[in-house]
Amino acid sequence: MSEPRKQLHLGAFMRPIGIHTAWWRYPGGFPDANFNLDHLVRFARTLEAAKFDAFFMADHLAVMNMPMEALKRSATVTSFDPLTLLPALAMVTERIGLIATASTTYNEPYHVARKFASLDHISRGRAGWNLVTSGNPDEALNFGRDAHLDHATRYARAREFFEVVTGLWDSWADDAFLRDVEQGLFFDPDKLHTLDHRGEFLKVKGPLNVARPVQGWPVIVQAGASEAGRQIAAETAEMVFGSASSLEAGQTFYADVKGRMAAVGRSRDALKILPGAFVVVGGTEEEAKAKKARLDALVPVESGLANLSVRLGTDATGFDLDAPLPEIPESNASKSGQAQIVDYARRTGATVRELARRVGGYGGLTFIGTPEQIADRMGEWLAGEACDGFNVMFPFVPEGLDDFCAGVVPELQRRGLFRTAYEGTTLREHLGLERPGNRFFEARSSIVPDAGSGTML
Amino acid sequence: MSEPRKQLHLGAFMRPIGIHTAWWRYPGGFPDANFNLDHLVRFARTLEAAKFDAFFMADHLAVMNMPMEALKRSATVTSFDPLTLLPALAMVTERIGLIATASTTYNEPYHVARKFASLDHISRGRAGWNLVTSGNPDEALNFGRDAHLDHATRYARAREFFEVVTGLWDSWADDAFLRDVEQGLFFDPDKLHTLDHRGEFLKVKGPLNVARPVQGWPVIVQAGASEAGRQIAAETAEMVFGSASSLEAGQTFYADVKGRMAAVGRSRDALKILPGAFVVVGGTEEEAKAKKARLDALVPVESGLANLSVRLGTDATGFDLDAPLPEIPESNASKSGQAQIVDYARRTGATVRELARRVGGYGGLTFIGTPEQIADRMGEWLAGEACDGFNVMFPFVPEGLDDFCAGVVPELQRRGLFRTAYEGTTLREHLGLERPGNRFFEARSSIVPDAGSGTML
Repeated sequence: MSEPRKQLHLGAFMRPIGIHTAWWRYPGGFPDANFNLDHLVRFARTLEAAKFDAFFMADHLAVMNMPMEALKRSATVTSFDPLTLLPALAMVTERIGLIATASTTYNEPYHVARKFASLDHISRGRAGWNLVTSGNPDEALNFGRDAHLDHATRYARAREFFEVVTGLWDSWADDAFLRDVEQGLFFDPDKLHTLDHRGEFLKVKGPLNVARPVQGWPVIVQAGASEAGRQIAAETAEMVFGSASSLEAGQTFYADVKGRMAAVGRSRDALKILPGAFVVVGGTEEEAKAKKARLDALVPVESGLANLSVRLGTDATGFDLDAPLPEIPESNASKSGQAQIVDYARRTGATVRELARRVGGYGGLTFIGTPEQIADRMGEWLAGEACDGFNVMFPFVPEGLDDFCAGVVPELQRRGLFRTAYEGTTLREHLGLERPGNRFFEARSSIVPDAGSGTML
Repeated sequence: MSEPRKQLHLGAFMRPIGIHTAWWRYPGGFPDANFNLDHLVRFARTLEAAKFDAFFMADHLAVMNMPMEALKRSATVTSFDPLTLLPALAMVTERIGLIATASTTYNEPYHVARKFASLDHISRGRAGWNLVTSGNPDEALNFGRDAHLDHATRYARAREFFEVVTGLWDSWADDAFLRDVEQGLFFDPDKLHTLDHRGEFLKVKGPLNVARPVQGWPVIVQAGASEAGRQIAAETAEMVFGSASSLEAGQTFYADVKGRMAAVGRSRDALKILPGAFVVVGGTEEEAKAKKARLDALVPVESGLANLSVRLGTDATGFDLDAPLPEIPESNASKSGQAQIVDYARRTGATVRELARRVGGYGGLTFIGTPEQIADRMGEWLAGEACDGFNVMFPFVPEGLDDFCAGVVPELQRRGLFRTAYEGTTLREHLGLERPGNRFFEARSSIVPDAGSGTML
């Protein structure tokens, strides 16, 4: 079945579960959803029935860094290790891709290469690796360090880490394993490569003790929006989790990254840009807006103040909640993040309490409305070359997820904007990405040679 | 159902799959068994139907260290990461324990604590951690080092690593998570402990970002037979993978370790000693012996010579295969390992080829015979206080595994030496081990308080 029209790709960003601070308090929801296996299985199966490209799980290597008054209200403090959860979900699903975040800052490339290769085999070609550098300074303290690595060092290490991991995945030619019982020959020694990497940050001999992944390499996902992040994405990523919050910003980002790809000789189609989108669905626009308002009202002011403090780069917990924002001193916080919220406060005269509620919710790209309205917006982004799809963030579960799958997906399908059946079996096939050739044994292949061959490599 | 008589505990040592070099060549077997998910699922389900305590998977962080002539004949070069495979097997089984080896030498305790805690929740209380120090010198080269850590440093680090991992597991009281939707309170701050460990080898702040494991702690497994290994086992282990190769040696080891436990104030029952046992089952004794001979004949002489070289501490590949063993120089190899094989060679006049075949197979505790004969031996070990059970090693698959489950298990059950049904749901319950109290929030409990509560902690 060929689809002449360009279609959306959809990832489900299960952070775990929600990006909105109050998701777990929404009436009728599952307050333990991020740590209840039965619920997670239900979500993965529902998303697969809706033909999502991938189930995408973020990660943190620490309890989140915030004051106790906010922390004790946060559902993120206990969640499963993504690389332990996803193999379990692989056994109760058949097609949906499984993307896990793994930091390059406080990990060893041999472990990362091996775990993603194992997941790719166990899921029969459905693994994706969201390659990040650790942004949470508390992570350093759990890994023998007193302070966080600086941004430039983290990026340089990430680049080298990527080279080592992909090099380890290429340790074995796809046809290395003979298992010749008669001759007693398990593999062909000419089809084994020892990496012997010695770089600035890493020294790794190899080879990997896992056969080459079903997909050649698991799909490489990145999210960096900085100058360095865009460049590394253009050179190495196959999916980008975008953060544009308007159509125009999305178009600018899309053109920039795809342009950088051309400059390094990569096809524009070799990377899919999927901005994160917070989607609230209602039977009417009013109903959808009422759901969003109900959710925002559940953000505890303490959580909002913690977020506000981070955004302002100054402790906001002593501010008068019912007064306008006081003067804010200069700080080392993100200048644009600070300026945005200060401008908003000056323009609207919002109280500190109102500002806290606002930043305690979700401030990025948000679609609120009926399935038709949401499909309109998504179609507009796709046609306007602002994206290749979205990483959908659900406001609460199960209702928000079910509403999307039962309402928005069928509307997109009616319009020809989303698949009605999986055509392939691997995440690469869902995303329309080539299977990478093995750098040590063959040139980059232009087709998908043995996808679906399962674990029998 | 109470069982007045002492019963055996049985682990299935899936190394992956075989300890015998030739397992993958046995006629009618699955040559890809260690890397075929469908086969592994079949084995786990068969072992669960036979009521085994645990599926036990060893691990190596490198392609095995041997010359290419032997390596290319080895099935161990590609296998799944145990902590990626076991969550998958947790979803297709309900009761059997799931034990993974994880090295304390080339890992970070935060990762290890988090992955086993996640596995314990996902499997609803069935995880076990085989705590080892890395013995394979090639592992160092995959983790940024030029040389292996020495034995004493590895053990000292392992001890500290154990303290950190168990301390991280105790980060949260069992009843820390309130999920009070009305008040917006996710957890009780008084029930969160920050470890703040600063030791000789490790600096880890904590807390862990995973709730306390279902079992309190996953079951702690060890295998060390050295003086240091026995002492650390007596102080901290809950299962020991023993290596005694005779009843008398088993009794000596058993009395020694249980005696050391008493000296540190632990109950003898708080640790189960399960020697590895290579078991070959036949309808008659002759048939069983013929199977073993057929398997041994499939050991390639190159593999045997590689093993022989390691045992002798000298390169044996140049020796005349059909002559007796020449004089062997002093070396740094294990003195007892070297002496044992040299004595055997002198006593029997065996040729180098015969010696290579012998050490290329399996030289440890072996039971060969009918189900009745094997049950006799196992009962004798149990009654003689030489063990609390066995970690069974199958000579080949599926036949060897099926023979054990269909033949030996029913015979043990008929004699009242093995369970006919699981009485509990957790690995601790199978093994008759207490659930550890939380060191920061309660005294060591004397009962198993909430086993079977699933993932809803």
